[in-house]
Amino acid sequence: MSTRKELANAVRFLAMDAIQKAGSGHPGAPLGMADMAETLWNDFMVHNPANPGWWNRDRFVLSNGHASMLLYAVLYLTGYDLTLEDLKKFRQLDSKTPGHPEHGLTPGVETTTGPLGQGLATAVGMALAEKMLAAKYNREGLPVVDHYTYVFMGDGCLMEGISHEAGSLAGTLGLGKLIALWDNNGISIDGQVQPWFSENTLARFEAYGWHTEDVDGQDGEAVKKAIARARKITDKPSLISCRTAIGYGAPTKAGSASCHGSPLGEEEIEGARKLLGWKHPPFDIPAEIRSAWDAKLEGQQAEKKWNNLLKKYEQAEPQLAEEFEKRMNGDFPAGWRQTLTDLLEKTQAAGGQEATRNSSKKILDVLGPLFPALVGGSADLTGSVCTKWNGAKDVTPQDFDGNYLYYGVREFAMGAIMNGLALHGGFIPYGGTFLIFSDYAKSAIRLSGLMEQRVIWVLTHDSIGVGEDGATHEPVEQLGMLRLTPGVRVWRPADSVETIVAWLDALRHKDSPTCLALSRQNLPVLDRTKYHPCEPEGPGETCTPAETMLASIKTGGYILREATGGDPQAIIIATGSEVSLAVAAAEALEEKKLRVRVVSMPCAEAFDAQDVAWRCKVLPTNVRARLAIEAGAVDWWRKYVGLDGAVIGMRGFGKSAPGKVLFNHFGFTVENVVKTVEKLIAGKSE
Amino acid sequence: MSTRKELANAVRFLAMDAIQKAGSGHPGAPLGMADMAETLWNDFMVHNPANPGWWNRDRFVLSNGHASMLLYAVLYLTGYDLTLEDLKKFRQLDSKTPGHPEHGLTPGVETTTGPLGQGLATAVGMALAEKMLAAKYNREGLPVVDHYTYVFMGDGCLMEGISHEAGSLAGTLGLGKLIALWDNNGISIDGQVQPWFSENTLARFEAYGWHTEDVDGQDGEAVKKAIARARKITDKPSLISCRTAIGYGAPTKAGSASCHGSPLGEEEIEGARKLLGWKHPPFDIPAEIRSAWDAKLEGQQAEKKWNNLLKKYEQAEPQLAEEFEKRMNGDFPAGWRQTLTDLLEKTQAAGGQEATRNSSKKILDVLGPLFPALVGGSADLTGSVCTKWNGAKDVTPQDFDGNYLYYGVREFAMGAIMNGLALHGGFIPYGGTFLIFSDYAKSAIRLSGLMEQRVIWVLTHDSIGVGEDGATHEPVEQLGMLRLTPGVRVWRPADSVETIVAWLDALRHKDSPTCLALSRQNLPVLDRTKYHPCEPEGPGETCTPAETMLASIKTGGYILREATGGDPQAIIIATGSEVSLAVAAAEALEEKKLRVRVVSMPCAEAFDAQDVAWRCKVLPTNVRARLAIEAGAVDWWRKYVGLDGAVIGMRGFGKSAPGKVLFNHFGFTVENVVKTVEKLIAGKSE
Repeated sequence: MSTRKELANAVRFLAMDAIQKAGSGHPGAPLGMADMAETLWNDFMVHNPANPGWWNRDRFVLSNGHASMLLYAVLYLTGYDLTLEDLKKFRQLDSKTPGHPEHGLTPGVETTTGPLGQGLATAVGMALAEKMLAAKYNREGLPVVDHYTYVFMGDGCLMEGISHEAGSLAGTLGLGKLIALWDNNGISIDGQVQPWFSENTLARFEAYGWHTEDVDGQDGEAVKKAIARARKITDKPSLISCRTAIGYGAPTKAGSASCHGSPLGEEEIEGARKLLGWKHPPFDIPAEIRSAWDAKLEGQQAEKKWNNLLKKYEQAEPQLAEEFEKRMNGDFPAGWRQTLTDLLEKTQAAGGQEATRNSSKKILDVLGPLFPALVGGSADLTGSVCTKWNGAKDVTPQDFDGNYLYYGVREFAMGAIMNGLALHGGFIPYGGTFLIFSDYAKSAIRLSGLMEQRVIWVLTHDSIGVGEDGATHEPVEQLGMLRLTPGVRVWRPADSVETIVAWLDALRHKDSPTCLALSRQNLPVLDRTKYHPCEPEGPGETCTPAETMLASIKTGGYILREATGGDPQAIIIATGSEVSLAVAAAEALEEKKLRVRVVSMPCAEAFDAQDVAWRCKVLPTNVRARLAIEAGAVDWWRKYVGLDGAVIGMRGFGKSAPGKVLFNHFGFTVENVVKTVEKLIAGKSE
Repeated sequence: MSTRKELANAVRFLAMDAIQKAGSGHPGAPLGMADMAETLWNDFMVHNPANPGWWNRDRFVLSNGHASMLLYAVLYLTGYDLTLEDLKKFRQLDSKTPGHPEHGLTPGVETTTGPLGQGLATAVGMALAEKMLAAKYNREGLPVVDHYTYVFMGDGCLMEGISHEAGSLAGTLGLGKLIALWDNNGISIDGQVQPWFSENTLARFEAYGWHTEDVDGQDGEAVKKAIARARKITDKPSLISCRTAIGYGAPTKAGSASCHGSPLGEEEIEGARKLLGWKHPPFDIPAEIRSAWDAKLEGQQAEKKWNNLLKKYEQAEPQLAEEFEKRMNGDFPAGWRQTLTDLLEKTQAAGGQEATRNSSKKILDVLGPLFPALVGGSADLTGSVCTKWNGAKDVTPQDFDGNYLYYGVREFAMGAIMNGLALHGGFIPYGGTFLIFSDYAKSAIRLSGLMEQRVIWVLTHDSIGVGEDGATHEPVEQLGMLRLTPGVRVWRPADSVETIVAWLDALRHKDSPTCLALSRQNLPVLDRTKYHPCEPEGPGETCTPAETMLASIKTGGYILREATGGDPQAIIIATGSEVSLAVAAAEALEEKKLRVRVVSMPCAEAFDAQDVAWRCKVLPTNVRARLAIEAGAVDWWRKYVGLDGAVIGMRGFGKSAPGKVLFNHFGFTVENVVKTVEKLIAGKSE
């Protein structure tokens, strides 16, 4: 029988050889962590390589994603749909084995990692998901949700701020089935960490309320005992410090930063073969070792056992089971779309004015009871960002059967935790903070886009409308920043009606994160008597006024107010709070006998995805007198107004004053818009 | 004589009354922290209200910036140039008293705060500045640099990840003159913090190596003793937990989140008057209390005493004193510009190819010895980002007389610490990480822009040129994100020559942060024989070829290669690694008898600041066949190519493969550029 060390060495040599073949990569961490991986996967991980999507699998997160070859080797060895050929294509174009693990490209990769620290926080989200689902659905003797979440992470993850945010919250919540193993090798890229990382990390995590262990990470048996102890602690997450040598096995480079980020070289690898007594050529894993790693049969049995449990559950708790399965399948509740269409009709008819953050809250009041998967929360701004709907129930350290999370002032962790909730399955997470603080969470939002996860950000206080809180709290470049981020949909609705469509769009895009930029201040429900509706979507579509309105707004950019008396001489494009200004200006211009169309463009990503016919209908190529108005950075809008148009926007930071004063101060006035459009029509660009 | 409580109450009522008058603001924190402030400012702070720029003053940072009225009240009472009228204009347009403290708007405000946690990290930068300057310049009996850095902060600051990054590093560095007072009121916006913030914060900071204290924050004497003890601990930073009641003194709202972010209301304020025994009308501070707070005389004496010390120092250490004073004054070393011009000339002549990250390192090799104020560092990527010049000396916990910092994997704290170093004076901080990780530090970069601080970011691996590390490490939207951020200058040099100018520009813009986006891969030194130089800057200017080249590049956008045989039919605008591609394509197009100009645009902010004559010379209004090429998000470039042009850029995330493969894959090829330009000339836009 193969020894633990031999099994671990299989990982080591697959990693060394693949990195060598690729000509780049990070051998240090896989070599150091191979014993930890061997123990975790062969003694603890409950998973089914044939079905990486099995709901009740243990989750594994490689937070130090540069150790990707460790994970690929383990996935290959345990029997996932990953071949030796795939390993040989490590880091090559469109292979299943990119430089850092990317969810969606490789079976068994639970989350995309590389940007350090986020893996831990995402794992907190997964462990939280497990605990919340268990609290909601498990019944005596019927634990249909019952798995662990394991994390590997390095010193870098622990230096990053997000490790604090996530660690502190996980401790407070007592996530007992979260077990993190720290590759404590004392080395980061700049060398021995002592001069920049000398904290007592275990004491830090104890202060967070974690259980901690400290073991020789190169001793598989010691690691096993520590994991076993950690599993017995059910009311605290666990951090296991595994003392390792970076590049373990490399004869001259082990223990130094030099083996972190480059192939070891043929000679060093040969030396490692001798040192570790590994007699097999590159990419050649003996059958005995493969067989010892193979988890297919065990995995199949585990899933089968769980399927039997689920059957019992379905019999004992048919209603719960149905809801649970619908949630995990991501099914939409019946009638949800009609409910929103009805709300839209009512909202349009009611008129009046409302801050879109409040509109969002009213929509949540409707959606909340419909979608058991919706889990809300805020980074300590619940009242301001209006994320807690009337029937929402708090998740607390004492009760996880809820759907509202208090993340504390931790925007970045909130983003990564929402990614974890979405990745886990069974959840549609949404979280609120001020738009300005998307800055803190930027990298997590990017990862949502890269992973194609439906994470919904409720980003209120979306402009200088913030007012007195001043420049530090007034977003300027954030709308552009988010729009430039691939895969992210940004909605900035102009009124309550558009806010409904924004939420609808966010929900139905299962593969996209959405940022909802909402106003602090009241916005009038727009007069749509002069709007130019789109055609019904297809022969099967109903076309009630509300449905048509919904279909129009859903295009992301539509004619809210058509010029009267002929083709438009100018087009004003606006979003959010600036749309009503655009309409008022268009009316003033009409009095001067100028024909001006107003396009509301709440979601540029949606608009860009329309066919060319729609786009040219809304923004005819020949109308170049175009003005964009948005209380955000101007440059992004050149995309739609070109060199001949103009933008009224922000060219610097905001200021501290009442919001209305600021809108005047920065030129968001009918007078300025009228003047600018007149110039454009006269053929003078800026 | 006024009691401590009476003195503290003066702050309380100024805060309550100003917030009430403004109709918005945050009374809770000022009321809770008034006793802490009273003790700190009246018993410890060494400062001179008449000269807020005195080099050796104690620094005070209000990390929970929403408590701004506390700071304004203290600055008013101690005698800064801030009147009662200014307090009455709290949160009004262009007043000296914005909603959150903004450096530059109010005398005595050391840094802009509001985005939570960053104040603490900025204070770490200030304390580090003090310790480094002291190590370098102080001599036996001549401590010309000798001050404390004090911080007030709230629960929110401590929940944010950056508090971990900064706290851990400050502990490792043993910044003994950093004393942070935590407004430990157990309340954040969402209520009692226990369900989301139950960590043992003092134990956490002890794990970082901090000294901690735990006192009744409403007891000025107890706070005084704790600060006195903290000052005696010289090898550790100190965290003093001051247990307080939010909104202390408000009869019905104290101790609850309801007093956090809204005026208390007239009735509640009247109740507070009764409860606290405060008999004076709004904005009326009795002379006795004003006199007890007044720090003008004491401040004048303190500065005078220090001036005498400086005189002795100048006599004893004339050379050191000269260097110290030049540094603190921000003087440039003689000949620095000529040195860079010479280097530019040599670099252009030498030709060859080089990654611009390496060019940057060679420039630092030249600048380092010239600028004692330059302090470099990296977030654990020193070798990769090439930030450590040959003579640079490490700052270590044992030796602060150095100029290179190991920040660890803490990008956000690095940004805030650099802000602190710059704000302190005596430093030109630069720090390196990968461009992708500017995401982690975004908010700190924004604050550099808002505070107009010369902080230089060395952001390497600036595109898909990253290659095999893949999508997680390949910036796409980051260039646009940084360019959209007000006040930030972004340089993406095309070769070694432009990199020199980028550094020169970054240094001479004393009031702007600069982001240098540098390549991982080699870039050829561009052939400038066909370039179209700008005119000499003025009659007094020399115009050697190198000077002219420098002047051209400094404009941010210049004609690198003029079309031959007539006016250009098309213009290709490119930056960084894509410029040589543009040149190659222009040459291929020339063979097809098409006249194409290539504009290198390393810094759009610089270009936009040129006069219209230069801008129209480089990009003539009538040439609409424009192509922008940049391996970043495309939309931003519409600014220069408009609706009739085209952009070759990134429309999604990168991939993992060798860099060259990726450039081909994503269309950065001569063939694609040629094809696109031909279409544009034929009048077909995208």
